This record gives sequence, structure tokens and C-alpha cells, in this order.
Amino acid sequence: MSIDERGAVCVLGAGLIGGSLLRAAVAAGYRAFGYNRSESGVSAACQDGFDVSGDLSSVLVRAAEVDALLVVAVPMPAVESLLADIAALAPGCPLTDVVSVKGPVLDAVRKHGLEALYVGGHPMAGTAESGWSATDSELFQGAVWAVGVDEGTRAQPWSRVARLALDCGSVVVPVLAEEHDHAVARISHLPHVLAEALAQAGAAGGKLALGLAAGSFRDGTRVAGTAPDLVRAICEPNAAALERVLDEAIETLVTARESLRAQGRLGELVETGFRGRTAYDDRTTWDITGIVPGTGDWLGELYRAGREGGVLRAL
Amino acid sequence: MSIDERGAVCVLGAGLIGGSLLRAAVAAGYRAFGYNRSESGVSAACQDGFDVSGDLSSVLVRAAEVDALLVVAVPMPAVESLLADIAALAPGCPLTDVVSVKGPVLDAVRKHGLEALYVGGHPMAGTAESGWSATDSELFQGAVWAVGVDEGTRAQPWSRVARLALDCGSVVVPVLAEEHDHAVARISHLPHVLAEALAQAGAAGGKLALGLAAGSFRDGTRVAGTAPDLVRAICEPNAAALERVLDEAIETLVTARESLRAQGRLGELVETGFRGRTAYDDRTTWDITGIVPGTGDWLGELYRAGREGGVLRAL
Repeated sequence: MSIDERGAVCVLGAGLIGGSLLRAAVAAGYRAFGYNRSESGVSAACQDGFDVSGDLSSVLVRAAEVDALLVVAVPMPAVESLLADIAALAPGCPLTDVVSVKGPVLDAVRKHGLEALYVGGHPMAGTAESGWSATDSELFQGAVWAVGVDEGTRAQPWSRVARLALDCGSVVVPVLAEEHDHAVARISHLPHVLAEALAQAGAAGGKLALGLAAGSFRDGTRVAGTAPDLVRAICEPNAAALERVLDEAIETLVTARESLRAQGRLGELVETGFRGRTAYDDRTTWDITGIVPGTGDWLGELYRAGREGGVLRAL
Repeated sequence: MSIDERGAVCVLGAGLIGGSLLRAAVAAGYRAFGYNRSESGVSAACQDGFDVSGDLSSVLVRAAEVDALLVVAVPMPAVESLLADIAALAPGCPLTDVVSVKGPVLDAVRKHGLEALYVGGHPMAGTAESGWSATDSELFQGAVWAVGVDEGTRAQPWSRVARLALDCGSVVVPVLAEEHDHAVARISHLPHVLAEALAQAGAAGGKLALGLAAGSFRDGTRVAGTAPDLVRAICEPNAAALERVLDEAIETLVTARESLRAQGRLGELVETGFRGRTAYDDRTTWDITGIVPGTGDWLGELYRAGREGGVLRAL
């Protein structure tokens, strides 16, 4: 497939993820341009030679003209307003997003009548940094990129989104929005909450505690260095799923505390935790092959494959 | 000071910490030898050219002959029995340890009448690995090494322990045993417990969750990869302090959960956690100078300096 057949990409929001996507898409040979709200972000991106504007209307009109794949790359609280503009100015463009939660985005997309050409996306990559200055064309290399396979998803936009993810160096994991959100509550949002709690507990120990802190504290609190507004924007749209898994974690910790109190022992947690980390270290993936988007029960087949550890490495 | 004046070092236990210390001491020019319980560890160390034996009695007799600094480098559950042998065969040797908790070791040392020449130690370094194969002469480079300044500590063994830590590339933070144990409950033992809980929660999400897991889960669960017996040996001797800080953390998490439930918001935790991590990133140390062990109120001065972020970089 030639570069032209890939079509253009229009990234809406040039922060860490959107900006890195713009870089990665350009590096992969896409015609890619974008929008950013803040003037400073626009300047920084333009100075680095990227085609980014602060004029949302003109960016969307241009996207509609070239049938660009729109990528919503703003935090969840800004998604609704952006979708309203898309519905007004570029409703015929294929549409995806890189927001960390999928159910609320899908709801908002439906509310604005944009679901026909929408495919949810979530590259599982990031750092504690944010903004254009943190962007990196290599951010998605080797990452997992969740791509939605909810009912009604159409083959053409799906293939464009999957191809973009692959061209950025990621593998694609097909997911349903709801199952994605439950999964990321466990492996992305709970880590944020526990890191914050650990950072708070360490700092409460004053200079001596922070002075003695080494690798376990450093790694366990890394994501607590993320800007508070960004943490909220990542975690809070997934409040219901996060509350449920936080509840589970609290129950686990209460059991450990009772065991420490009664017997001076941590109990089962040490084994289940070790098994959990071992399962993570030993996780294997297998390649999804032979499914052609648009033919047969392709959505169902992709969904089942994703649940069972399958990843797509090529289209 | 010449190498001979440094005296010999006898490391009792050649696991990750003890074995690395043996390597680092030899690299720094010390006459260093050791003991290890397991035959496989002895063989591995000898094959690498180190002077390690499985015969504890002969090792201790030799240590007594050359006035070696004894370093107890076995997990807490094995400390008592080792101290009994030391009391029988090498009671006149200066004595330190690298165990992750200081109060229980000090109690055991007193029980065996060895407190006169004892100085507690704890290098804040490690990995999730264990055993001789994981040892590394560079493990202590740039690390913080807590060295006890409890009442009754004598200048000569203190200086030998501090010098060994410095020669291994660490900086020395003077601590009281009790304050050390409270601090490490926050920055070393709580991280283990939270990592285990996170690993358990992630694995409960099955292949999809583990397949989507990225940096925040990987870093947040890293220490859950530590062998369960080692985690218990590290954390459980500090059960009382750990229970207290775990209680604090649970309270923090319950507040966040209630806030999520009531308002869909994480609340204050995001700010306090960010501030905590920032305090860790921005922590500064200053050099302790001008205190001569054995003169004036040297123990009190070292203690106060350690509490306030002071570190010793040279003797």
C-alpha cells in the first residue's frame, strides 16, 4: 500500500500522546497535521517543523477536505466540546481517539451522532511527563494499542486506525470499550492511585524517610509525578470501574493488615502478588492472522482473539 | 589510611546483599572472606574466585584470629542462630549487619551479649533478584547506607562500619534503630505490600488486563517479583511499624474510594501524592563534616544530622 492510500491524519491535541502520534505518523510517512489549544504548544510544534494550528475550525475544514483520519487526543474533560465541533465541521471523517478510557468516549461519540465512522483507540504508552516538550516519535514502538471492536464498528475506519497504530510501531489488541475500561482500571488507574498513596506515606516520614528511599519507593511512586490534572483526567472518567478495583485492593490490604496485627505475618498476599507479577512477566501473546475486516464475523473473531492474548502485528 | 589499617571483613551470608558486599569489599582492597549456608552458593562464590566457606565454625574462628569486622548478611529469621555462634566463637569481633530492620537485630544482639562492639547497618540497595548469581560489586555505588548511632555505640567499630560503607561507594546516614524501622516501613516495606496488592489486582483481570499493562503496572509491581520468602524476611520483622503505616495507607485509599463513589473524583490524594513524589525528587542532602567519632557528643550530633538530611561522604 502506498503512502497516499494510507490517507491523511489529523491529530486534535498535541500533548504527550497526540504530539508523539503526530511525530510518529510523520516519521512513518503519513501526511499529518494537527490542532492544539494552547498557543505555546502550537509554537513549539511549529518550531519543530510540524503542521499544527490553533485554529480548530480551519483544521477541521481541512481535515474534511482531505478525508483525514481524525484523532481525538485531548483529555476526557475536553472531549465533548471537541466532538461538537467535529460534528459540525467534519462529520464525514473517520474518527478515533487516544483517550485513556473508552466507554465515556463512545457515549459522547454516540451523543454527537458520530458513531458510524468511530473506532476507539488507546495506545498503552506514556510517561510522567506531559506537553509537546515531552513528545517522542518512538513513544509507541513496541507498545500495545487497544483498538475498539464494539458492535457496529465499520471495516474501513477500523483498518485505518489499526494501520496507523501498526505504522507507529505498536501491536493492536482488539477490545470492547467496557472490557477495556475494566482492564485499565486494574493496570493503569489503580497503579496511579497506589503510587499517590505511597508517595504520601513516604513524604509523611520526613527527610529521614525520603533520604533512605531507594528503588522500591522510586519505582512505586514514579507515576505520582504525573501532573495532578492529568491524573484526574486519566482516572476519573473511569470512576466506576476504578472504585470497584480499588475496593478489591483495599480488601486485600485490610486482610494483610489484620494478619500482621494478629500474627506478625503478611499472609497469602505475598504469594498471590508474586504469582501475579510472574503471570505478567510470563505473559505471552500470539499473532492474530487470517481475519479480514468486513468479512464474516470479523468483529466477534477479533474480540475473542484479543481477550485470549492475541495481537495483530500486520493487516 | 592503608588497606591493612582497614582490617579484614568477614561476610556471613553470600546472598544478593552479602555477596555483593564481599565483591565490593574485595574490589575496594579489603581482605574479605565469608560464609554461606548453601553449598551451591559456596561453590558459585568460590568459582568466581571469592574466599567463601560453608563451615561456619572455622570461618568464625578465623575471623576472631584476624579481628575481622563481622557482617551479618542473612535474613532476619536466621539472625538469632548466627549470633549464638558468633557469641561462642568470635565475641570480640566488631559486628555489623545488613538486615532490613534494625530494632529486632539490636534486640537479638543484646540478648547474646554482643552489643558492645555492634553497630547496626542497612545499605538501601537491592533488586528483585536474589542469591550469589545476582551479586554485583557496584550494587552499593551511590546508595545510602544507614549506620546505627544508638546509645552505647562505640567509636572504633562505628568508624570501621562507616568506612566500609564509604569504601563500597555509599554515603552514610546515621540513624537510631527505631527511627530507621519506622522510616523503612514507609519507603521500603509499604512499597512491597502495595506492589503485591497491585500485582494481584492486575492478574485478576486476566490475559486482557496483563496484555494491556504498560509502564505504570510494570514499575508499580516490580518488587512483587521478589521471592516470597525474601519479602517475608524483609517485611515481617518490622510488623508493628508496617502495620501502622499500612493502616495510614488504607485510610488514604478508603477516603479516595468514598470520594470516587460520591463524586466521581479522587479528591485530595492526587495533590498530596504529587507533592510527596515532588518532595522525593527534590530532596537534598548536605554533608556532615567535623564530627569525630568518640569525641564530645558525637552520637547525638550524628543522630541529629541524619534526621535533617545530613550524609557522611568521608571519615
